[in-house]
Formats: sequence, C-alpha cells, structure tokens
Amino acid sequence: MSAALESFAPRRDEPIFGRLAIIGIGLIGSSIARAAKELNLAGRIVLSDRDEAVRLRARELDLGHEIAETAAEAVREADHIILCVPVGACGAVAAEIAASLKPGAILSDVGSVKNAVVEAVSPHVPDGVHLVPAHPVAGTENSGPDAGFPSLFLNRWCILTPPEGTDAAATAATRHFWEGMGALVEVMTAQHHDLVLAITSHLPHLIAYNIVGTAEDLEAVTQSEVIKFSAGGFRDFTRIAASDPTMWRDVFLHNKDAVLEMLGRFSEDLSILTRAIRFGDGETLHKHFTRTRAIRRGIIALGQEKPETEKLRKS
Amino acid sequence: MSAALESFAPRRDEPIFGRLAIIGIGLIGSSIARAAKELNLAGRIVLSDRDEAVRLRARELDLGHEIAETAAEAVREADHIILCVPVGACGAVAAEIAASLKPGAILSDVGSVKNAVVEAVSPHVPDGVHLVPAHPVAGTENSGPDAGFPSLFLNRWCILTPPEGTDAAATAATRHFWEGMGALVEVMTAQHHDLVLAITSHLPHLIAYNIVGTAEDLEAVTQSEVIKFSAGGFRDFTRIAASDPTMWRDVFLHNKDAVLEMLGRFSEDLSILTRAIRFGDGETLHKHFTRTRAIRRGIIALGQEKPETEKLRKS
Repeated sequence: MSAALESFAPRRDEPIFGRLAIIGIGLIGSSIARAAKELNLAGRIVLSDRDEAVRLRARELDLGHEIAETAAEAVREADHIILCVPVGACGAVAAEIAASLKPGAILSDVGSVKNAVVEAVSPHVPDGVHLVPAHPVAGTENSGPDAGFPSLFLNRWCILTPPEGTDAAATAATRHFWEGMGALVEVMTAQHHDLVLAITSHLPHLIAYNIVGTAEDLEAVTQSEVIKFSAGGFRDFTRIAASDPTMWRDVFLHNKDAVLEMLGRFSEDLSILTRAIRFGDGETLHKHFTRTRAIRRGIIALGQEKPETEKLRKS
Repeated sequence: MSAALESFAPRRDEPIFGRLAIIGIGLIGSSIARAAKELNLAGRIVLSDRDEAVRLRARELDLGHEIAETAAEAVREADHIILCVPVGACGAVAAEIAASLKPGAILSDVGSVKNAVVEAVSPHVPDGVHLVPAHPVAGTENSGPDAGFPSLFLNRWCILTPPEGTDAAATAATRHFWEGMGALVEVMTAQHHDLVLAITSHLPHLIAYNIVGTAEDLEAVTQSEVIKFSAGGFRDFTRIAASDPTMWRDVFLHNKDAVLEMLGRFSEDLSILTRAIRFGDGETLHKHFTRTRAIRRGIIALGQEKPETEKLRKS
C-alpha cells in the first residue's frame, strides 16, 4: 500500500459493505475497486463493464474479486452499487439492473452532473432500494482501467446529493465508504451541486476545449509552435482538454441550463476585459488581475493545491 | 547546486560574459542571477532595482556579486545587460541607462511581448551597442526576489528576436548564455513571436483571469464552495490567474492587436460550442473534444509536461 494512502485512510478490520458492485471499469471505477480492496472497505468486490476487452483487462489487473459478464449479474446480492458510466448511460444501466437489486441495497453513481442522473435513474429504483448519488471531484486526464489508482480520492471532495426523504442510514453508509477512501464528504441538493460544478468544473472544461481548438485552427502559428511554447500558460488548458470526450459530451448535454448561465456571465465579463484592451484601459485590467489572486490563496490554504514553485523545485 | 540543474547545465570553467547587469530583481531577474552565479556564466554579476526594499532583500539573499543603487550605475562596463522589468517600463529604463552603456555591449530583456519592446527600446540604443531581445517562456505564479530559483529555465524555451541586421556574434553570445542556463533557444521575428505568444500564453492568461473573476461575482455559489470544489478543473485556472498583475496589464496593453485577433477567434469558436449545448448537438461536442487530445500528446512527447497521473502518484 502506498504510504500516503495508508497514513490518511487506514485499512479497516471490518468492511463497510459485504458486497460492492462497480458498473463501468474506467478511471473512476477501477480506482474505487483498487482503494476498496486495499483498504478492506467491502468483503467482496464485483465489477462489470459492457466492453469485453475492458472486462478482460480488469481480470489481468486483478481488480476486485470478481468480474461479472453483465451488470445485472454483478449487482445481484450487492449491498452497495456504484454506476461508474458516463452520465448519459446511467438511466439505461439502472433499467438493466433494476430487477436484480436486493431490498435494502444502496444505489449510487459518480456522475459529474446530479440532477439529470436522479431524473434518469429514479424511475427504475425499486421500493426498498436507496438512491444516494455521489460525485467524487477528482480525476486525471487519463481514461480506462489502467489509469486508476487507489489514492485518487485522497483529500478530494466527494459530494452526495440524496433526494429529499432518502434513508439517513443509507446516506451515512455512503459517506462512511467515501471517507474510508480518504475523501472529504459534503451533502447538498442535486440542483445546487449542478450550479457549483458548472463554474468550478464544467465551464473550465468547455473553455479549455475551446481554446485548444482555436489554437489548432490558426494558419499563422503552427501546431508545432503551439506545442513548443505551451509553458506560457496554454499547457494547463491542454491537460483539461485531454479529458474523456464521451464523459464531457454527456456533462454538457445534461447540465445545459447551469452551463449556459455561467457561459453568459463569462462572456459578459470577457467583453469588459476585451474593451479594456482595445481602449488601452490599464487601470481596469490591473484591478481585475489583482482581485483574482485571493481565490488562489484560498485554494492553497485549503490544501487543494501546492504552490507552483514548490512543485517545480521538486521536479 | 541542485542535481537536476548540474546534470543538464554544467558549471563553466570560463564565464561567457565578463560583466552581467540585471535590471529588475523579480522572479526572472533573481533566477537569472542565481543560475548565472551557480553556473559561472558571468565573471561579475551586478543587479539593481528601483525599489530600495528589493535591493536590500537582494543583498540579504546574496544575489549576484553586487547590488547597485541605480540602473545606470549597474550597467557601467557591463558586457551583457538584461532588463527584467515589466514590458511597459523597458523604454524608460533604456533611456535611463543609454549614456552608461559601453560600446560592444549587448542589451537584452525578458519581456513577454517583443515588438513593443523593440519599438520602445531601439531609439535609446547607442551606436555600437547590440539589441538582442529575449523571452524565456518560463515562470511561476510567484513574484519578487525570493521567488526565483536557478533551474527555472531548465528545459524551457527562450525566444530571441534580434531585429534585422543585428550583429550575428551578439545573437550567438546571447543564445550561448541562455543555453548555459539549460534553456532551449529559438530565433524568430518580434512580430511572429507576438502572434505565437498571443495564443500560447496571453489569451490563456486573459481567459483564466476572466473565469476566476466570473466565479467571484456569483451570488448562488459561495467563494468557499468555489475554493473547495476547485479540483474539478477551476484550480488550474487560478494558478494562471495569480500571476503578477502589473506584468500582465503591460502584456495586454502592448500586444493589443494579436490578442484581440485571438480573442475574436476564441469567441467565434465558443459560440459554436454554446450553440451545440443549447440545441443538444452531442455529435459536434464529441468531435471537438476528441481532436483537442492530439495537442496534449504532442506536449507530453516533447517533454514540456509530465502526464498528470505520474505527478499525482508522486505527490
């Protein structure tokens, strides 16, 4: 076990769930499987993926304890089921597994959008099964079962959005599970989640995808020059713009209203800076560039990021 | 000496310049002073800064060999002079030191904009002094004499933009000096430099400053929430948006045309993505998000960045 994970999230003597089912073996699903196994968070971990090649690779990587051929088979007798598939696929997977869910089971997911997932999944949840949607705010630019690692959620936030009236014990067990992987847990409504993530995650991704596309389409600057001189700031955008296209297509399609609202505000603000540049208004620029430093200091103070120089000196 | 710097940029037996003058002791100026001293790139290093507190701190940090009271004093008898001040201050500093420059000296700078610097500095360059503008594409979010470190330029590009007719030996010596600090050197015209950097550095900074400002102005999402959940993408923008406000105000005021051109293209492209979200056009989104991955692979292949997972696993 990695030293960092062990010191923060000790291995449990007794598992939290008897049987854990993970549907979708990508970066997130495989990371949960690795963490849950290493930390003994579940007695038995069953995974499944609709892609045969991925199931094969999961067996080679020895993820969990069992790789099931179908999602329905994987969830049978499971106490906790986590859908780790793109947001747009959650409804269909819920329909597929509904009849196999045991009473008292907790159905969860890891989608970056929550309102649309609740709407798509809820109609399929049988009586006696608890829906506790989750969103671990963690990830890397890489995808697939090989990309996962057990400390992915360490010191990262996981947001739970149980619908009104959800069984408190089910929410508590889900919180317990994520805290077991070293995550910090916060509970809020699905609506508020979608608004918060629209600005902290969805809009940044859209902007990053957009600027990298703009750079690719230039005639006067070659792609090789863009790559060479990317250390001036562009590089950070390319990391974000290398994220999984299917996952992100689904995010934007399913959090449309909040993203369009944030995009509108972003564009208004950009008009002001554009105008300041056009008319040489250095005072407006300087004032704007000064106030944005405060948020950065807050992020570093909260341990969600190390200062840049420290990272550079170490590398 | 740090192991990384030594293995890439060995200490020289003979310095490249007899006397090096650095005007402006911030992140870049103090990093050059540290690298040049550690690697013996100059026999004597003299620094100056218009701010008395900074000069005092530079003495405490034992930067270079000598801290001069004025820029004019610092450049006297210097073979290589580097202006490490904001772009908007280069013209005034050049006027101030002009009479003290010795014949045969090389006058250089580190500005992120080159055309405006050449235009502002050229009128003050005496006959027999060679103007070789430089731009090291390297930096961190921190400013001031304490923020510098000698390996800042290691494996980073430095762009030289000597005006037509510049003495080839002066350009060669400047290249030699930057390569001595571990930098990779490329020569291009000031006009082309400003276009390349507008997309790889200036526009990313403007966008980052803008989105952080948008996030600060929200009513429905608190600043504390923005900070907490920043790992979803926003965090990377805050690093860029914490850069020095004065430096960046000057960049936008002095590379207006190229930045406005890139901003126009960026906004056009963003309209297409916005429209795709509004009308639920998943195909357009997926296509766009797929093609942007290629540039990222190019950056990693060129060693200008490590893959994200590798960095995360180490931390």
